Amino acid sequence: MNSLPAAFHQILTQLLGEAWRTDAAALEAHARDNSWRHALPLGVALPSTREQVQAIVRACREHGVPLVGRGAGTGTTGAAVPTAGGIVLSFARMNRILEIRPGDRCAVVEPGVLNGDLQQALMPHGLFWPPDPSSAEICSIGGNLACNAGGPRAVKYGTSRDNVLGLVAITGSGELIQCGGAYTKDATGYDLTHLIVGSEGTLALIVEATLKLAPRPRAQAGLRVLYRDASAAAAAVSRVMAQPVTPTMLEFMDARSLELLRRNGAQVPEAGAMLLIDADGDDDTLPYLLNALAEAAEGDGLLALDVATDGSARDKLWAARRALSPALKSIAPGKINEDVVVPVSRIPDLVEGVQRLSLEAKLPIVTFGHAGNGNLHVNILYHPDDAGENARAHAALPKVFALALELGGTLSGEHGIGVAKRDFMAQAFSPATLATMRAIKQALDPDGILNPGKVLPL
Amino acid sequence: MNSLPAAFHQILTQLLGEAWRTDAAALEAHARDNSWRHALPLGVALPSTREQVQAIVRACREHGVPLVGRGAGTGTTGAAVPTAGGIVLSFARMNRILEIRPGDRCAVVEPGVLNGDLQQALMPHGLFWPPDPSSAEICSIGGNLACNAGGPRAVKYGTSRDNVLGLVAITGSGELIQCGGAYTKDATGYDLTHLIVGSEGTLALIVEATLKLAPRPRAQAGLRVLYRDASAAAAAVSRVMAQPVTPTMLEFMDARSLELLRRNGAQVPEAGAMLLIDADGDDDTLPYLLNALAEAAEGDGLLALDVATDGSARDKLWAARRALSPALKSIAPGKINEDVVVPVSRIPDLVEGVQRLSLEAKLPIVTFGHAGNGNLHVNILYHPDDAGENARAHAALPKVFALALELGGTLSGEHGIGVAKRDFMAQAFSPATLATMRAIKQALDPDGILNPGKVLPL
Repeated sequence: MNSLPAAFHQILTQLLGEAWRTDAAALEAHARDNSWRHALPLGVALPSTREQVQAIVRACREHGVPLVGRGAGTGTTGAAVPTAGGIVLSFARMNRILEIRPGDRCAVVEPGVLNGDLQQALMPHGLFWPPDPSSAEICSIGGNLACNAGGPRAVKYGTSRDNVLGLVAITGSGELIQCGGAYTKDATGYDLTHLIVGSEGTLALIVEATLKLAPRPRAQAGLRVLYRDASAAAAAVSRVMAQPVTPTMLEFMDARSLELLRRNGAQVPEAGAMLLIDADGDDDTLPYLLNALAEAAEGDGLLALDVATDGSARDKLWAARRALSPALKSIAPGKINEDVVVPVSRIPDLVEGVQRLSLEAKLPIVTFGHAGNGNLHVNILYHPDDAGENARAHAALPKVFALALELGGTLSGEHGIGVAKRDFMAQAFSPATLATMRAIKQALDPDGILNPGKVLPL
Repeated sequence: MNSLPAAFHQILTQLLGEAWRTDAAALEAHARDNSWRHALPLGVALPSTREQVQAIVRACREHGVPLVGRGAGTGTTGAAVPTAGGIVLSFARMNRILEIRPGDRCAVVEPGVLNGDLQQALMPHGLFWPPDPSSAEICSIGGNLACNAGGPRAVKYGTSRDNVLGLVAITGSGELIQCGGAYTKDATGYDLTHLIVGSEGTLALIVEATLKLAPRPRAQAGLRVLYRDASAAAAAVSRVMAQPVTPTMLEFMDARSLELLRRNGAQVPEAGAMLLIDADGDDDTLPYLLNALAEAAEGDGLLALDVATDGSARDKLWAARRALSPALKSIAPGKINEDVVVPVSRIPDLVEGVQRLSLEAKLPIVTFGHAGNGNLHVNILYHPDDAGENARAHAALPKVFALALELGGTLSGEHGIGVAKRDFMAQAFSPATLATMRAIKQALDPDGILNPGKVLPL
């Protein structure tokens, strides 16, 4: 589609006024996400109400115009990039927190609310919404739900999908549907809520979400544990996850990650791998929880274990972890960052396999991430201008996916599929399973107008 | 359908041998669940492998024969009763625990494994599977997943849907699909796993499930708290759920429930309502947790609070709770037991509304259940042989549902819909939402052979 039908343009102008934009600046501002992908939309709609969203979807359907829903554009897979042309529907103006219900441990929000803004609003109630992607300050709840965002806290509190109780959404057929609500137990009909979460705007556009909240813990503390090698650290991850105290976060960093931290001035002793293990509770219980976690972390290959209670020591630990992703750029300007998942017990094999691929590709690959969920970020680093490195980096990527699948894992734990991993879906799922996903797509979006070309392989 | 096509009968005989049954005893043994409903199937298939299940579904599809999947038949909604004729496929012989993976906190099972047998097998590993319906000893995992069974522990650990990581299933189109796996974070394609859970065998038949396990707590203890009236107890439920320590169980019993316990010889002091609040942890942390829960339970209308640590005092508390359901029969032989859900903050309104309905219908209605999830069992008691009582009881039922919906709740928290609540679905969902559910049914079961007439209104 190279231009919008005149009748369509007229409908949207009448419907939205200045909230229907076709100027170059608006188009350019909605052409990217946080991947390297770029595609200009033909128009940008900025609705303020669910009725407007529904009318836009119906107009798109009537005129066969592709529609890409957009939160804050912080995704990493190209899911919000209008690669098939058509229009972008931005939820930037649907950003009201409609209700905070402490007694029901839930909040009702529009999709454009920023994750960070919601957390601020929940603070006085002693509550929080668990998903904590690293973009939390600037990403939207709608985007979090669309790609089932996670973050370090997911090991204790689950991902976005685990923390939503109900949705109001407009399907690709232009119907407003309502599922779930302000309750935590539901055996009433098909679970449309969890189906729509993680479908990356290909089935329906979320216009309201009822989010499950958790009580803010009174105290947090962490352990920094150094190991001889990655296998020793990975074995400790399994031990930690097999005992009753579930950590709040359980992060793994390989030897290259530690090198990188040191190169950037952080004080990290020599070690083959590091775990950051966090717990939350209150002042009475926290020492016991940390003790149980420390006991589980101890074992063959342990080099050092330090406790950091709430405050600056702990902040420093986590600052080191957060500094990691930006620090990758100091090794090489090009980065392919994938977030594969494996069963926790197979982390040693994943780490070992990635080291093998690194040698084979003659490229640094840095591995770190959410070990308690078996969700590691594998960063292939290369110089994009070096044709050889470029080719080897992109040849290594399918091997990372093949390795994760071979170990009984899957392609993505929290970034989603978008365009980035779409062509690997046929390795992750059987033809019959993909056909079932396609049948569901057809059922909810019969004309294929919602985010075409994303998630499902062509 | 009054008889099976001869060709179909021949296919199943060849496929299953003695595991294809059409004798009167087998038919009668598969004609009921734990509701009052009865319908004879035309044949009973007892497959041992997923390949057999797939061949049976394909034969049913080819010959237009309705197929009702069946676990242990303990459901209460008629979901497993072959009301549309056709055959019953029993998973009784697919009852192997395929893998227990302590390091990955998961187990892989066939659907016919009994919940109680799985718990036994997990004991030596220090793990358990959280769903604990009152039929746990004798119900099957496949049945638990089919109706999204819960139980008292759901307030801390979630329902069946929250405790499954992956499935292998045969859809109504006869395809074998595979989704999820032995990992706890997944942003890869559509969430077929949670969609199939709770769909009561109308979309696909589960042939293998990867279950999320929890570490068995080292110690448990409970509080028995008596209140002046139901409102005071309900307000305490809200307070308990708004603070950071989530109880393992949080059960409510109304004044009539307490009367009933006393009538049956239990030593329960006079009170308007009672809460049983359980916590789990270890010997170090448990006293602090109980303390936090007791603080939250205290407030206006409190009459007495007793602590029962692990052992016989606690067993007695829970024995009183378990005795409640069978004791209902001593009031009247007829019982309509529905498991509506409301937001926790609306429990006072639900209890008050039910008392009003009880006066209006001139029938005892006893309310108790899983208050931490807002999931109360409302038991309308009557004499079925008394035409007046019978009529008033069945007239009260839609009013109970209307009340729950009006309070922002829903029809079922853990029993499911089956035939029992099917005709109320149109009150719970808009026509567009129901149409979306029907489109999904059509996508996965295009010829409508899987459990026809269940869940979705006709």
